[in-house]
Amino acid sequence: MTLQVMLLLCVFVSFIAFGYAAWLFLWVKKQPQENKTITKVSDLIQQGARAFLSRQDRILIAFAGLISVIILFMLPAPIWKGGFVKNLTNAICYICGTLLSALSGKIGIEVATSANGRSAEAAQKGIKPAFMVGFRGGAVMGMAVVGACVLGVSVVYLITGDTQAVLCFSFGASSLALFAKVGGGIFTKTADIAADLTGKVELGIPEDDPRNPAVIADNVGDNVGDVAGMGADLFDSNVASLAAALVIASKLDAVSAYHNNVITVFCYAGLGLLASVLGVMTAKIGKNGNPTSALNSSTYVTTAIYAVLTLIATYVFKFSWYVWAACILGLVVGVVIGFTTDYFTDDTKQPVHNVAHASTSGPAFTILSGVSYGFLSTLPAMIGTGISTLISYKLCEGIDPNFGSEYALFGISIAAVGMLSIVGMIVSNDAYGPIVDNARGLAEMGGLGDEVLSITDELDSAGNTVKAITKGFSISAAGLTVIALLGTFMSEVNDAAAEIGVAGITGFDAMNPLVFFGMLVGAAIPAVFSAMLMLGVNRNAQRMVEEIHHQFNTIEGLKEGKVDPEYNRCIEIATNGAIRELIPAGLVAIVSTIVVGFVGGVGAIGGFLVGNILSGLLLSLFMSNSGGLWDNSKKFVEAGHEGGKGSEAHKAAVVGDTVGDPFKDTAGPSINTQITVVSLISSLLSTLFLTMSLFK
Amino acid sequence: MTLQVMLLLCVFVSFIAFGYAAWLFLWVKKQPQENKTITKVSDLIQQGARAFLSRQDRILIAFAGLISVIILFMLPAPIWKGGFVKNLTNAICYICGTLLSALSGKIGIEVATSANGRSAEAAQKGIKPAFMVGFRGGAVMGMAVVGACVLGVSVVYLITGDTQAVLCFSFGASSLALFAKVGGGIFTKTADIAADLTGKVELGIPEDDPRNPAVIADNVGDNVGDVAGMGADLFDSNVASLAAALVIASKLDAVSAYHNNVITVFCYAGLGLLASVLGVMTAKIGKNGNPTSALNSSTYVTTAIYAVLTLIATYVFKFSWYVWAACILGLVVGVVIGFTTDYFTDDTKQPVHNVAHASTSGPAFTILSGVSYGFLSTLPAMIGTGISTLISYKLCEGIDPNFGSEYALFGISIAAVGMLSIVGMIVSNDAYGPIVDNARGLAEMGGLGDEVLSITDELDSAGNTVKAITKGFSISAAGLTVIALLGTFMSEVNDAAAEIGVAGITGFDAMNPLVFFGMLVGAAIPAVFSAMLMLGVNRNAQRMVEEIHHQFNTIEGLKEGKVDPEYNRCIEIATNGAIRELIPAGLVAIVSTIVVGFVGGVGAIGGFLVGNILSGLLLSLFMSNSGGLWDNSKKFVEAGHEGGKGSEAHKAAVVGDTVGDPFKDTAGPSINTQITVVSLISSLLSTLFLTMSLFK
Repeated sequence: MTLQVMLLLCVFVSFIAFGYAAWLFLWVKKQPQENKTITKVSDLIQQGARAFLSRQDRILIAFAGLISVIILFMLPAPIWKGGFVKNLTNAICYICGTLLSALSGKIGIEVATSANGRSAEAAQKGIKPAFMVGFRGGAVMGMAVVGACVLGVSVVYLITGDTQAVLCFSFGASSLALFAKVGGGIFTKTADIAADLTGKVELGIPEDDPRNPAVIADNVGDNVGDVAGMGADLFDSNVASLAAALVIASKLDAVSAYHNNVITVFCYAGLGLLASVLGVMTAKIGKNGNPTSALNSSTYVTTAIYAVLTLIATYVFKFSWYVWAACILGLVVGVVIGFTTDYFTDDTKQPVHNVAHASTSGPAFTILSGVSYGFLSTLPAMIGTGISTLISYKLCEGIDPNFGSEYALFGISIAAVGMLSIVGMIVSNDAYGPIVDNARGLAEMGGLGDEVLSITDELDSAGNTVKAITKGFSISAAGLTVIALLGTFMSEVNDAAAEIGVAGITGFDAMNPLVFFGMLVGAAIPAVFSAMLMLGVNRNAQRMVEEIHHQFNTIEGLKEGKVDPEYNRCIEIATNGAIRELIPAGLVAIVSTIVVGFVGGVGAIGGFLVGNILSGLLLSLFMSNSGGLWDNSKKFVEAGHEGGKGSEAHKAAVVGDTVGDPFKDTAGPSINTQITVVSLISSLLSTLFLTMSLFK
Repeated sequence: MTLQVMLLLCVFVSFIAFGYAAWLFLWVKKQPQENKTITKVSDLIQQGARAFLSRQDRILIAFAGLISVIILFMLPAPIWKGGFVKNLTNAICYICGTLLSALSGKIGIEVATSANGRSAEAAQKGIKPAFMVGFRGGAVMGMAVVGACVLGVSVVYLITGDTQAVLCFSFGASSLALFAKVGGGIFTKTADIAADLTGKVELGIPEDDPRNPAVIADNVGDNVGDVAGMGADLFDSNVASLAAALVIASKLDAVSAYHNNVITVFCYAGLGLLASVLGVMTAKIGKNGNPTSALNSSTYVTTAIYAVLTLIATYVFKFSWYVWAACILGLVVGVVIGFTTDYFTDDTKQPVHNVAHASTSGPAFTILSGVSYGFLSTLPAMIGTGISTLISYKLCEGIDPNFGSEYALFGISIAAVGMLSIVGMIVSNDAYGPIVDNARGLAEMGGLGDEVLSITDELDSAGNTVKAITKGFSISAAGLTVIALLGTFMSEVNDAAAEIGVAGITGFDAMNPLVFFGMLVGAAIPAVFSAMLMLGVNRNAQRMVEEIHHQFNTIEGLKEGKVDPEYNRCIEIATNGAIRELIPAGLVAIVSTIVVGFVGGVGAIGGFLVGNILSGLLLSLFMSNSGGLWDNSKKFVEAGHEGGKGSEAHKAAVVGDTVGDPFKDTAGPSINTQITVVSLISSLLSTLFLTMSLFK
């Protein structure tokens, strides 16, 4: 088996995934959509989501254009020093990264906004068909994201054979994720908060009442935040993990006695995609079955298929068993972390009950207990990530004693690849959430009756439970990926050092004051970044609240429900505001990296990345988990506990939920993207940091 | 000037400080206390505080007894291997550390609970006498804490000449700080929250109403948390900074061409104490003067005096100018960080106004904006700490080129010593706060009239402002100290390695998986630690609320104010609960260190400390600052902004304040102590971790 053949096989598998996604898409489209209100609202949502994407695309084209010009002139070396082809390749790969990521987001949005109404109507026939519409709609996104990732990386490597081109491709994916995830996160919470504040609180109308001008924006938000944003985020992590593994693998292939590293990475990546396709195909729910266990069991099935497929491949192609073990270790730890994290947000477990009970003493106690459990919840994932780093390092260290530390780093990167191998399944499950969430709202607006609502409620609740698991999983996967990227950065620095004839580095020593300085600054950045996003959501929500007040004051007959509000104005505000607020936050992350690099050089940047990873992991786990915990505590109270709906405990729980919204849907998950962007920039600029820094 | 003479001079200066403290104490006692209600309540507070201390002492004696036995048998080496005298010395030094810290806490409590009533009565004669009683009362604590520190370290070094004995002394101080700061922090917030919940919320009676059974406990809490706890905390940091500097200095004196390191440390420490004495002596307030600027200007005066005194000493004794520069750098950065942090909590600045304004949209927005500004506020202090580490390292690196990295670490430790040099002044200002806070309550209970209340209000508000500054300062100082302790740990490891004939270490490389594993776990510990404390406060407050309900239900005539409640029951609950809740949290910190050490060895522990420092600094800055911000936002609203008292914004601001209370008074400042304890344990157990770990 040559590398070329393997790469072509990967391309082939990605086409299988695309084909399957197309079949699923057509299947969803074939499902009946007859209710007029549902069709109308569903169309409005689709148009709103498209409006957001096209506005985002315009900004993105400007941004990506600028970056690609910089790459064209500067990477890997200034273009005037000769090397036009390499620079051009890098720029093109960067653009391809942004395009593929944008494309898979667009596909996801299209199918999600088509599936939501159809799932609502299918619920009239029972839970099984409604579940299948939601799940298959989500699976389109899953197949598209992972297919695009495997396709993109394979083709780039096939054509260029250059890992720096892969890094540029990955950087393209990250730039887009910064916009899609962060912008989508701001959009969704802006609309959510503004709709709740004016609708539920001021006017006393239900959550999805069509009189509220923000109601469509709110539903659009679910799609742009959870479908497009989350897809871009996982596309980004997945590409980055492959890029990190490839950089190290290709260097090892060139020097080590064991040559199978690059081919292993592609083989495992392709098999991950294949396992996800098979996992989605076999997903089933009984006639009156439980959607949560259907979703979870498909995750297990995919995991098992993947383990078996890689086992066979490793045996047949005589790959290293140590590398295989590291890969499976990553996968298993990822699943375990997901389920441990679930403990803190599951409404049958102690933390949710305790927070609900604390709410009876008032909102301050909802917040205090939620923050406390959020802090506690970081421990299992931090330890789990630590253990998988440590063991995968130790496993692979011995593959070639001459290159012990390089193989060790390769082991870490393969653990990240393993953890992300089933990402197709994860994205499917994750995208299922907003579809059935929308379906619930549409069923209400379409007046489909209480029985249907109880089915969509059950589907929605399964979506929330699964989301908690996938979130813990994706944060840890991103964590392991950026740890692998740290190795990539060191490797890039040493390449650059060898080229210009200076001494390389062997690590990032905390006792080196430049490294420590970098660590301190790097640790502060995720906090500053999240703060800016949350303040941005706040500001943006205020703008939308003003618009809603304005519409209620000026549009006659709106309060009585005789005329429709101008939904588009709210969508515009959310869109423009999201983009306006994300730019300064993104700049802080990027500029601080560049400043630290030019002040303290590669040592300071190494420290900066370490500090960034540590505090970023900690804060994103904390914010995502406490947000999920508050959400479920509110639902637990609404289910009739601690006084039920309308009680003081309920009011307090709603406060917790409102605080948790930007925690879990804006700031928490955006930190992943921030860390990845910063890591990739550091790798790409390593030569400059090495040669042009103030301190050495 | 020989070292012996310098040590004796330090002892002499500490006696000056004690003498001055005694004079101040007698002066306070001489002030009139005539109002019967004030005297009665003040006595109750004093008795309550004494009860807490004596209960704490009993637990402490058991705990310290156990640790000292362990030290006696195990440190520096198992006693059965011979070395009885050294082990005994270490155990005695440990005990002395706990005793001196406990003693200065006791002195502080005695004077604070005597000064509160007298300050209230003095306010009848104007702001000037009332301020002087509060300030001089606080200064007794300041002089006692720093005097005890300088005395203790000097005498231990004079007698033993062994830096490990100093480390044991420091560990003793830290153990006590763990109890005093953490226990006091739980106590004070338990009482505060329970008193507010039942009094203000349920019964609608004012904050300091004597019918509330928790009211005395609440006032006791101010003293045990802010006076005794804060004193123990800064005593701990101060001793630890000296210990860290001495460990490195004494090694350098033995090998380097430049011999003045140990003597410089003592000289600078003694001069810091002297400068604080002079600063307190010169503190003045005009007849209608502004107490805030009186407090701040005394800080500036002390800083200036210290700079001049050390300048002269450096010139006269021909110390290294680089060391002097590092010391002054630490001092200046400390002051700058204090004032930058102040921006985020000052009620004339944007953050407080914005949080107050956000409160008009409900408590969720109070919390979200407060969390955001709290996150932002970490940046200046993190960068400041990073810069002072970096520059002090670079400054001292060149003192002896043969020992560049050792001198560099010495530079960092001297920057910490410099930052903590004016701690006598800082403690004075800090202890002033609870005295005038109590005075305000006593003036109300004693019925001294509105004019007196407005004076005590002004004094109280100055206390809050200054507290924000000193808090930022003390967190950064603790941060720099633990960074210096990291150097101490490495130095101890290398000593142990040399003794048993294995290779030493040169640093803690993040690319080493054991180090990285340690970092991940270490970063999670401060979050877990704070979570346990906050949950502990919650649980304990619930217990006290039950007791208050019980008293109101069973004691006849209590509601009408005809009979007194059983104040002591509430004090007992707060005391026992505080101690019960702090033990598991303390154990988690200690046990996780030991487990990581025995699993991953010295590399993992190095990483553990780095992760602990980074996330500990970040979280303690975040929690202290957002807590202060919420407190002041509430006061800002109460001063009539955004709707004023009783408005919706006010209710929301009160929620913020309640969340902020355990943030800023329990969890945030306790993290300092947690990090210091963990650092000292690591240094003391370095030999064991080096020889007996699972991985190497």
